[in-house]
Amino acid sequence: MRLSSSLLFVSSIIYANGVLSAPSPDPKAAWVRQGRARKAASKNGRRWLNETSTPPAVSSCSGNNYTRITAPKANVWGGLTDVEAASVTKWMFAQPEFNLTLSDDAGEWDNTILLVELMHPNKTDVLYYLDGAGPAPPRYAHVVLDHRACEDPYYEDILVGPIDPSGVNNGTTRWEPLEYPYTRKTAGRVRNLDADADDTLYSQWIYKISATISDITLDLWGGTALGHDNDTLSIWGIDPLWQDDGRVIRWDAFWSNSVDNFDTQTLLPLGLYFRSDVTGRDPSQWKFEGWYYNGIFYDTTEAFKNAYYTPGFAKLEANVEGDWARTDQNGPVIPLDTTPPPVSIAPSGARFSVDVEKKWVKWMDFEFFVGYQRDTGLSLWDIRYKGERVLYELGLQEALAHYAGQDPLQSGTAYLDTYYGFGPYAFQLVKGYDCPAYATYLNTSFYVAETTHTHLESLCLFEYTADYPLQRHSTSNYVSATKNTYFTIRSVSTVGNYDYMFSYSFYMDGSINVEVRASGYIQSAYYANNDEYGYKIHDNLSGSMHDHVLNFKADFDILGTNNTVAVVNQVPISTTYPWSNGKARNTMKLEKSYIESEDQSRLFWGPNSATQYSVINKDAVNQYGEYKGYRISPSLGAIHLTVEESSNLANAARWATHDLQITRQHDTEPRAAHAYNNQDVHNPPINFNTFFNSENLTQTDLVLWLNLGMHHIPHTGDLPNTVFSTAHAGLSFSPLNYLEGDPSRQTVNQVRIDYGDGNVSAVETFGQEQGSGSCAVEYTPVEADLWDYKGDVVVRKFPFDPNEPFYETDSIV
Amino acid sequence: MRLSSSLLFVSSIIYANGVLSAPSPDPKAAWVRQGRARKAASKNGRRWLNETSTPPAVSSCSGNNYTRITAPKANVWGGLTDVEAASVTKWMFAQPEFNLTLSDDAGEWDNTILLVELMHPNKTDVLYYLDGAGPAPPRYAHVVLDHRACEDPYYEDILVGPIDPSGVNNGTTRWEPLEYPYTRKTAGRVRNLDADADDTLYSQWIYKISATISDITLDLWGGTALGHDNDTLSIWGIDPLWQDDGRVIRWDAFWSNSVDNFDTQTLLPLGLYFRSDVTGRDPSQWKFEGWYYNGIFYDTTEAFKNAYYTPGFAKLEANVEGDWARTDQNGPVIPLDTTPPPVSIAPSGARFSVDVEKKWVKWMDFEFFVGYQRDTGLSLWDIRYKGERVLYELGLQEALAHYAGQDPLQSGTAYLDTYYGFGPYAFQLVKGYDCPAYATYLNTSFYVAETTHTHLESLCLFEYTADYPLQRHSTSNYVSATKNTYFTIRSVSTVGNYDYMFSYSFYMDGSINVEVRASGYIQSAYYANNDEYGYKIHDNLSGSMHDHVLNFKADFDILGTNNTVAVVNQVPISTTYPWSNGKARNTMKLEKSYIESEDQSRLFWGPNSATQYSVINKDAVNQYGEYKGYRISPSLGAIHLTVEESSNLANAARWATHDLQITRQHDTEPRAAHAYNNQDVHNPPINFNTFFNSENLTQTDLVLWLNLGMHHIPHTGDLPNTVFSTAHAGLSFSPLNYLEGDPSRQTVNQVRIDYGDGNVSAVETFGQEQGSGSCAVEYTPVEADLWDYKGDVVVRKFPFDPNEPFYETDSIV
Repeated sequence: MRLSSSLLFVSSIIYANGVLSAPSPDPKAAWVRQGRARKAASKNGRRWLNETSTPPAVSSCSGNNYTRITAPKANVWGGLTDVEAASVTKWMFAQPEFNLTLSDDAGEWDNTILLVELMHPNKTDVLYYLDGAGPAPPRYAHVVLDHRACEDPYYEDILVGPIDPSGVNNGTTRWEPLEYPYTRKTAGRVRNLDADADDTLYSQWIYKISATISDITLDLWGGTALGHDNDTLSIWGIDPLWQDDGRVIRWDAFWSNSVDNFDTQTLLPLGLYFRSDVTGRDPSQWKFEGWYYNGIFYDTTEAFKNAYYTPGFAKLEANVEGDWARTDQNGPVIPLDTTPPPVSIAPSGARFSVDVEKKWVKWMDFEFFVGYQRDTGLSLWDIRYKGERVLYELGLQEALAHYAGQDPLQSGTAYLDTYYGFGPYAFQLVKGYDCPAYATYLNTSFYVAETTHTHLESLCLFEYTADYPLQRHSTSNYVSATKNTYFTIRSVSTVGNYDYMFSYSFYMDGSINVEVRASGYIQSAYYANNDEYGYKIHDNLSGSMHDHVLNFKADFDILGTNNTVAVVNQVPISTTYPWSNGKARNTMKLEKSYIESEDQSRLFWGPNSATQYSVINKDAVNQYGEYKGYRISPSLGAIHLTVEESSNLANAARWATHDLQITRQHDTEPRAAHAYNNQDVHNPPINFNTFFNSENLTQTDLVLWLNLGMHHIPHTGDLPNTVFSTAHAGLSFSPLNYLEGDPSRQTVNQVRIDYGDGNVSAVETFGQEQGSGSCAVEYTPVEADLWDYKGDVVVRKFPFDPNEPFYETDSIV
Repeated sequence: MRLSSSLLFVSSIIYANGVLSAPSPDPKAAWVRQGRARKAASKNGRRWLNETSTPPAVSSCSGNNYTRITAPKANVWGGLTDVEAASVTKWMFAQPEFNLTLSDDAGEWDNTILLVELMHPNKTDVLYYLDGAGPAPPRYAHVVLDHRACEDPYYEDILVGPIDPSGVNNGTTRWEPLEYPYTRKTAGRVRNLDADADDTLYSQWIYKISATISDITLDLWGGTALGHDNDTLSIWGIDPLWQDDGRVIRWDAFWSNSVDNFDTQTLLPLGLYFRSDVTGRDPSQWKFEGWYYNGIFYDTTEAFKNAYYTPGFAKLEANVEGDWARTDQNGPVIPLDTTPPPVSIAPSGARFSVDVEKKWVKWMDFEFFVGYQRDTGLSLWDIRYKGERVLYELGLQEALAHYAGQDPLQSGTAYLDTYYGFGPYAFQLVKGYDCPAYATYLNTSFYVAETTHTHLESLCLFEYTADYPLQRHSTSNYVSATKNTYFTIRSVSTVGNYDYMFSYSFYMDGSINVEVRASGYIQSAYYANNDEYGYKIHDNLSGSMHDHVLNFKADFDILGTNNTVAVVNQVPISTTYPWSNGKARNTMKLEKSYIESEDQSRLFWGPNSATQYSVINKDAVNQYGEYKGYRISPSLGAIHLTVEESSNLANAARWATHDLQITRQHDTEPRAAHAYNNQDVHNPPINFNTFFNSENLTQTDLVLWLNLGMHHIPHTGDLPNTVFSTAHAGLSFSPLNYLEGDPSRQTVNQVRIDYGDGNVSAVETFGQEQGSGSCAVEYTPVEADLWDYKGDVVVRKFPFDPNEPFYETDSIV
């Protein structure tokens, strides 16, 4: 896939580069301490020569990687162009009121730009453009500023625009606070609890505290965490910080550093924790509040030391890295495993079409636009089936990983991952592993520190044929069967320890599936006293229980925007019938109802899967009198949060409490969460609860907010990594009385065999291309190709330097 | 696959051949009227020449279809040999007390043999053989007799044996009633409600009643159901029959016959029903009890006719077959659909081993024996993982399809499909559609009417590589990913209108999945007055609501037979911690408990998937102190029956009421249901409720009875056929603290790429065979091969005629 600048889906991320004397290689888990801080963009990366990469290493008899098409409309969610991003950045630096410093040069008391990306236009305006005669909505940049040159640092969301095709126009471009999409009305400003996390927190606080007990860390673990190059320990803590009673409280813990290249640190907790009150920006006003070790809280270092040096004090052993924590091949090789396993090939190349510039995709009777943003990564827009919009928007909103434990670190951890962002961590995919080798791979991009980073080959698009048919029926004289070939678009974001795989799949029966799978490293707990919070999975390790809950927005438009949610319950009944002799019969029936308002629209899947939800259009009645619609059902499991009224989250993730929630669509409620909800959990910029204000939900524009996820109680099988095969969740959206029959009857990839008495009289293949019979297929094509793995490409936006791209990939380190 | 007599897994089926003037081709739905009646074995089939079939038409660079191995022990579930079955049949005919007639010659008042198959030995005896020094258990035949030469006809289960390798020995072979595996102690005898269903019922009753209103059927539908060759209508009714108050009551309905080869009759109900009391064998004592039409019950034909000929009587229209009911390609062909879609190939052939004679399979670290029986089809035995037994037995027990409706036919229908049998209807699979073209296909066999029928290529075994990896993790300097290649054994049984696909899959992480998918034709309802029981899906058609519930036995033996079921609940809590300043925190924890007795062992999955069940061994503690076990969880959805205290079922399917039920293993409780439970629903031969008698379940031999299924409210998308993509259910059995880590680390089919600055420094492939780079693969190999479809092969057992096999395939017609 040749990298094209038109593929630079602009997004953004800001994070630290971990220069605080962290060991090399950086332990990933150190990301927690650095949060979403500044990025000193390195130019040390190898120069990217914009070379043409190898042609798709398909296991294919055809070089056809996709058919080129032209989208009928602009992709209004496609991101800023390079020129636009550069011009907005330049314009921002020209506005004196922002007092901006280049990220490379900025310290903790400087203001910087965190994000420049395309502001999604309002649905109202977009529909006027897509469906009516209206022009494309004007383009605005969504800019996030990090105001740290003040005692009360804050983030600020602003809009900059309108942006002309050639960039901002100094005569007409303005900025304004971005407030309307947030439920909190504070002019787009949110406090920043991490302003000093880059340097001061560690140099002036964490390491000094660690130094007071270096005798103990040396005695227990033979190492220290002092901010030195030879540290063998790291310190990091809870997220979100405690924000009760007007204070900002940290809990930090000691972890062993990985001893090699493997990203093992979250498997190496040491069981010692300390609490700090870090309210305000003056470290001299911060308060050390005590140690916690092996179930006992010591409110001073003296008390802890006294206990430690008292004979009989129980010293707990370290968790020590070993092959058990490394992902490489390990254990006896099974003889037949060394030969290549089955592999899917695409003998005729890609059977779908892409407008690469406009990111518009068409497979069979489905078509959609692709969007990509810093916070949430991949999203799909204007999903149409047989020419009619089914979903205006479908995409991730937020991902919560809520832990629990007897220790303050696990108990205090409830990651809201869009703070880190899914866009920045959607790494290059591994051909033949993450997706088929023959897939079409596209790039994605995000803005960070006056540069645009491009993830090469970070989206994959492919068809696959399931191991089972879509349809079949046998009798003694014929058999009919249909191949189940589906289309998937996928990205994988590794947000720290976890790899989340997002797959959107489309089927010949008109259904759409959304699937999330989780692999990567668990965040484990020190075992002591945590037996009610997980299994003991290694020497001194607890598989810390946690809930993954991922919220998705599904803005259905079934044959128009005015829709209703229907509820069909299958219920047991005892009733008489005209024919039952007056005798009651125990049987069942359907109870049909509708969700009438937001007072009744926060729902659960219900016991025994006996409740079926669908989005229907009461004005779109089929020829048999039934409402046309799409059914919404869990397919691979779907959960909501176990914790009720979480002390960690307060109001920051109110979307997590139910399975399926329905609101009336408003341009002012575009997203269920804000990336900075964790900075002010009691009064977050977006409190999902406030979406529910008794509005009528009958035949109006509806949005479904759907949770996917897994309850995860890690066991030994999660070492070294959780496996995708069991950590999964999925939803299915399937046509319900939407068409006259099963649309998969259209496919020619079906067969009917007429037979009898051992003879076949017909093999009907309905015009399938019969081909020449064979083609040469590489069956170990993948490894050679993997030498082309590149990572990310970076292009500087301010000063704009489009001709000197270079390679640099950053994970959360 | 060359057909080998050693593959003749002996099983049995008895059913009618539909000679009662049914239209040609036979409408499938007519099966309901014929039940499990006699089979007049035809010899009209084409002679089977035992020719060698074409070699596996694999999309493969290797001809290796499987590696030959030798099982360490005999397969004691593998069925009778041809010689054994023939000798038992001959011996039976030599016993005067049975008064047997050859099936071909038998009438309704003759006794026949319905089944001759291997009796599964008791687990106690088998373990003594497999694990100890004991001999293989003696072999017995399970014979089912159909005693119809009497006023009170009955089925009789008996045992015949022991059987020597050369067959029965007239000196030592005895028969005895088979009673111990059944909860009802009636010497293996169960009444036969269908004794007269072959002929008398129709000729003396159904058609005569139909004739009384032929004026109406001609007026409404232009046809008649009189038992004539030119009938365009069929009549059939409820299953089970009503069995209340000592009476046997039928409801029958009129259906249009299919007008072509498509199996459409269950889509063509006509909305007219009649009730008969058919108690006893004397038709002169039977009573006609009334008509039901369009919501009104008429207790006499005169009343119905009077109403019908009253002006203003509402005449309802027929459901008329058309392309909407046919499965062939239909609708516009999508241009890119005509080229071949992606297909899976096996470049190195099969990477598993089979002992074809003993039906023993080994894939990676899994191995198991294959069993096959008339009632339940495919089952797996002695499933071992890494040398240790995990499951002694895994297989289907019964499948219920419980309908509901305002009309008596739908309301009265609750099929218990082992009555018809899953073994007889596991048809030849369609290569490249039902399973990959490269799969290994094996035969299965069943006994019927003094013959053995062999389904050619009716089991498939294959590896597949999922479209997503098993594991992955990315950082900025390396990425690790592992292929998710799994192994599946599959069969498909078409029991009348529905095609059930059963897949047992094994994964590199040690997990085992059980999946059921449903396709084929729905049984629909006439629309009138059924709006509370389904959607209107065609002109006059209701998609009749129904529950599929399929019970599976999973006899786990985790590191020995003494096991316990652990329950781990994730619960929200509010609690203080030593470090929380006395402040309560809202969080969550685990509540661990155990199922102690059969008083508490009938379970539901529980809300929000927050309850995790596992089978553990308290005497098998891992090095970290946790119990080794396997977790049991729904993966693709799993339901229990909606109806409570079903009037149709009474005590015949008490297994359907919960999701997961646990009993103590007893040789006397081998199966949850009996094929004749529908013949005496109030007092069935096996009443699952009686398995629960307060026995202790701590560290004893446990059996899990697990329900899979779907609530099905058919919509237009179920026409013409239900699709597998949404009609599915699945369970996952996955290791829980069973090993020290994730066993998939053993595979070489993983990669680690080390990279940075746009360069790859290592692509570690762990010894994967790198191959020559390419091989020729047929990419449209399937259609040519489908001309080899054969259907079933029949070999006569009495008189034994092994040298004249012939082709004949029977569906339920």
